[in-house]
Amino acid sequence: MSKESEKLHIAVVGGGLVGALNACYLAKRGFEVHVYDLREDIRQLEHVPGRSINLAMSVRGSTALRGVGLEDAIVRDHGIPMESRMIHRPDGSTYAIPYGKKGQCIYSVGRRFLNEALINAAEQYPNVHFHFHHKLVSANLSKGQLTFENLTSKETQETKTDLILGCDGAYSTVRKQMMKMPMFNYSQTYIPTVYMELCIPPDEKGNFKMPENHLHIWPRGQFMMIALPNQDKSWTVTLFMPQEIFDSLDTPSKLIDFFEIHYRDTIPLIGKEKLVKDFFATKPSPMISVKCSPYHVGSTCVIMGDASHAIVPFYGQGMNAGLEDCFIFNQLLDKHDNDLGKVLPEFSQFRNPDAEAICDLAMYNYIEMRDLVNHLSFRLRKKLDDGLHWLLPKRWVPLYTSVTFSRMRYHHCIQNKKWQDEVVSNAVRTIGGLGILAATYCLYTSWMPLKEVLKDYESLLGNMVGPV
Amino acid sequence: MSKESEKLHIAVVGGGLVGALNACYLAKRGFEVHVYDLREDIRQLEHVPGRSINLAMSVRGSTALRGVGLEDAIVRDHGIPMESRMIHRPDGSTYAIPYGKKGQCIYSVGRRFLNEALINAAEQYPNVHFHFHHKLVSANLSKGQLTFENLTSKETQETKTDLILGCDGAYSTVRKQMMKMPMFNYSQTYIPTVYMELCIPPDEKGNFKMPENHLHIWPRGQFMMIALPNQDKSWTVTLFMPQEIFDSLDTPSKLIDFFEIHYRDTIPLIGKEKLVKDFFATKPSPMISVKCSPYHVGSTCVIMGDASHAIVPFYGQGMNAGLEDCFIFNQLLDKHDNDLGKVLPEFSQFRNPDAEAICDLAMYNYIEMRDLVNHLSFRLRKKLDDGLHWLLPKRWVPLYTSVTFSRMRYHHCIQNKKWQDEVVSNAVRTIGGLGILAATYCLYTSWMPLKEVLKDYESLLGNMVGPV
Repeated sequence: MSKESEKLHIAVVGGGLVGALNACYLAKRGFEVHVYDLREDIRQLEHVPGRSINLAMSVRGSTALRGVGLEDAIVRDHGIPMESRMIHRPDGSTYAIPYGKKGQCIYSVGRRFLNEALINAAEQYPNVHFHFHHKLVSANLSKGQLTFENLTSKETQETKTDLILGCDGAYSTVRKQMMKMPMFNYSQTYIPTVYMELCIPPDEKGNFKMPENHLHIWPRGQFMMIALPNQDKSWTVTLFMPQEIFDSLDTPSKLIDFFEIHYRDTIPLIGKEKLVKDFFATKPSPMISVKCSPYHVGSTCVIMGDASHAIVPFYGQGMNAGLEDCFIFNQLLDKHDNDLGKVLPEFSQFRNPDAEAICDLAMYNYIEMRDLVNHLSFRLRKKLDDGLHWLLPKRWVPLYTSVTFSRMRYHHCIQNKKWQDEVVSNAVRTIGGLGILAATYCLYTSWMPLKEVLKDYESLLGNMVGPV
Repeated sequence: MSKESEKLHIAVVGGGLVGALNACYLAKRGFEVHVYDLREDIRQLEHVPGRSINLAMSVRGSTALRGVGLEDAIVRDHGIPMESRMIHRPDGSTYAIPYGKKGQCIYSVGRRFLNEALINAAEQYPNVHFHFHHKLVSANLSKGQLTFENLTSKETQETKTDLILGCDGAYSTVRKQMMKMPMFNYSQTYIPTVYMELCIPPDEKGNFKMPENHLHIWPRGQFMMIALPNQDKSWTVTLFMPQEIFDSLDTPSKLIDFFEIHYRDTIPLIGKEKLVKDFFATKPSPMISVKCSPYHVGSTCVIMGDASHAIVPFYGQGMNAGLEDCFIFNQLLDKHDNDLGKVLPEFSQFRNPDAEAICDLAMYNYIEMRDLVNHLSFRLRKKLDDGLHWLLPKRWVPLYTSVTFSRMRYHHCIQNKKWQDEVVSNAVRTIGGLGILAATYCLYTSWMPLKEVLKDYESLLGNMVGPV
């Protein structure tokens, strides 16, 4: 296999973040790479369709970019560092909760910028060919056959390839083909919360209207709002609420009243008029969580990124997990000397428990972010975790740190957290037990004088009763 | 709605058990019913394609048949009563575990017989029209529009209907259309076990070769075999095993060796030659479990039966749950005076927790049947449950009884079982506690004489040591 590997032909379905990064990795190996994207060339478009929740780049994403020499240009030169969560109370007061140790931060990166940078980088390789505005209409995955419709010329084009790489997102067409095959496990879950994006524009001087090196959060229990900084000094604000609440805000005055109660400080930042205009011009979008297995078909097809594990956005890990897929796939190609018959099954087996773990973690953070972040217990536990992490930097890694600032396998992050929870609850129990012992001792020592008093009382009583 | 309801036009997609029973119920209400089936008229076919695991009819199924006057003709006149599980040990010895109280039994019914009886019954109504060999090629579910291809004439036919009723099985085309709509939750899971059907023919005199009023089980831990009696005195034998075990039995001698160890008593019953021939002529089939929600789209489409809740066959409830769907849907049409805008959402909301519960119960029985049935603890618990059920027939209903011999809502069956488990484990704990007290008392009372003995021994020892 190794000698012929240079001739491998790969069809990447989807030219988003994961598809374009895969194209870079595979081109570096000398493969012939054809990338088919449903959209027109986004570099030519005024408005890019599709998902646009802001991206928070952390260690997994930047490590994957480093592998193709893009980390500096994207993360260092373009990303806006966010060192902490800035929590906004309903009264408008704020406080910060750092993400990690001093110097650790996540980066706000524009989805469009990142996608264009990756396409540009892939196009530098002469063995990468982009086919924009091409729709996958049918496929025989186990034979590596694909049929595309060129949406511009309306022509149909058949192709045969050594490997189909499905990177076509949460509603993947490649995955839909896999669902026709036996023994393919699949689940899709919509959460009851939907989201809407609003915008805080820059001030008149063209500056940020809020402190910029933070991810701002307005946690409100059953709903919440977040804001991430953009390069143009605006903020993308995302409102997460159940559909029923969106439906109930059906007049401008109801909307403003709602904001007055829950997000008062943002009204002057967004602007009352703009808030009403943007809110009623947009429909909220649903959020889907997808798990499936396996990720491959024989030695001819594999899916990655959202196509194989779409997750809710509350851990900021969707893009990071997708880019890490490319990194791991590249490592497996190294390990097995490009033998796809070995690489693909191992990719499925290795990556599945981690992908399902980050799906679960993101769902867990959906509760924590809107709710727990507000609670004293969350902040106490965070202090404890931070303290232990400072004392034992390698032995005690808090969950958020392991997920965001390390490449610990996602399912190990969960195991690690479970172990920590056990240690903490055992400690609490032990301390509680010692407390009871101590209390008993105190009671005993204070009982002695009390007993004396009672004895006196008894004798007094005796004396009093005596004469009867 | 009620006045116009007589004019309602219904398109039933799928003419299997659930589709044909629905046709009967809806025809009885005076609706115009068109049933579209992908297959040719099965009454004309020599061999019917598709699933054929034998059917075990119990209370839910027969209640649903009673509603259209078919219980006697199908269950009483045709069904073969099975009063108990007949467990076969590897050495060929057997013992029976009754399903319920004396007189309670489940019925072995042929799938083909049942389907034909239901089609015949539906066809008695002048307002039911069957369209066999029709394939659903596209649909607009929220508009009630369907396009079918007549597979005989190759013509395409469009239809508009008041209600689309998707009864097209585990791989439902109607459900695939629903998956394109937002907020549709879905999961499909294949279990690692696959199945193959074999056959024990009648003896030379045309009689059953095994005692007929039982469901025979050969539980073997990671795999198992079952047999249900047929009207023609043969047995349909179903072998459940992981694919790897099927794969490992790749020569006749390996197969026979395997049967010699695990299913020795069946070799003469099936016949060595027939066993080898049938085994190598067939490919094992996978088993899928499907959950989804909601079951409806607006007031124009609803799915039922396997289309909405395909389950593994280990509780004998797949067909029963599907037929019960028809019964409940009919009740809701009564309750809401045929107002589909009310009936459909309530059907989804009411039926979903029960459908998911029977999915889970069937998966649970997949472990129990092949494994626990063999264990002493299973039989002890069964004795306890049976005893308590005899004492408190309404208060203490064992799980199997509630699922099989009652119409208790499936999710209540699970809650009921959890409550019973708590009661039993509390009782065990209390009895255990009393036991420890009793043991302590016994030890104490026996300690006294022992202490005397020890004292004697001590003095003896003292005397012995004394002179030293």
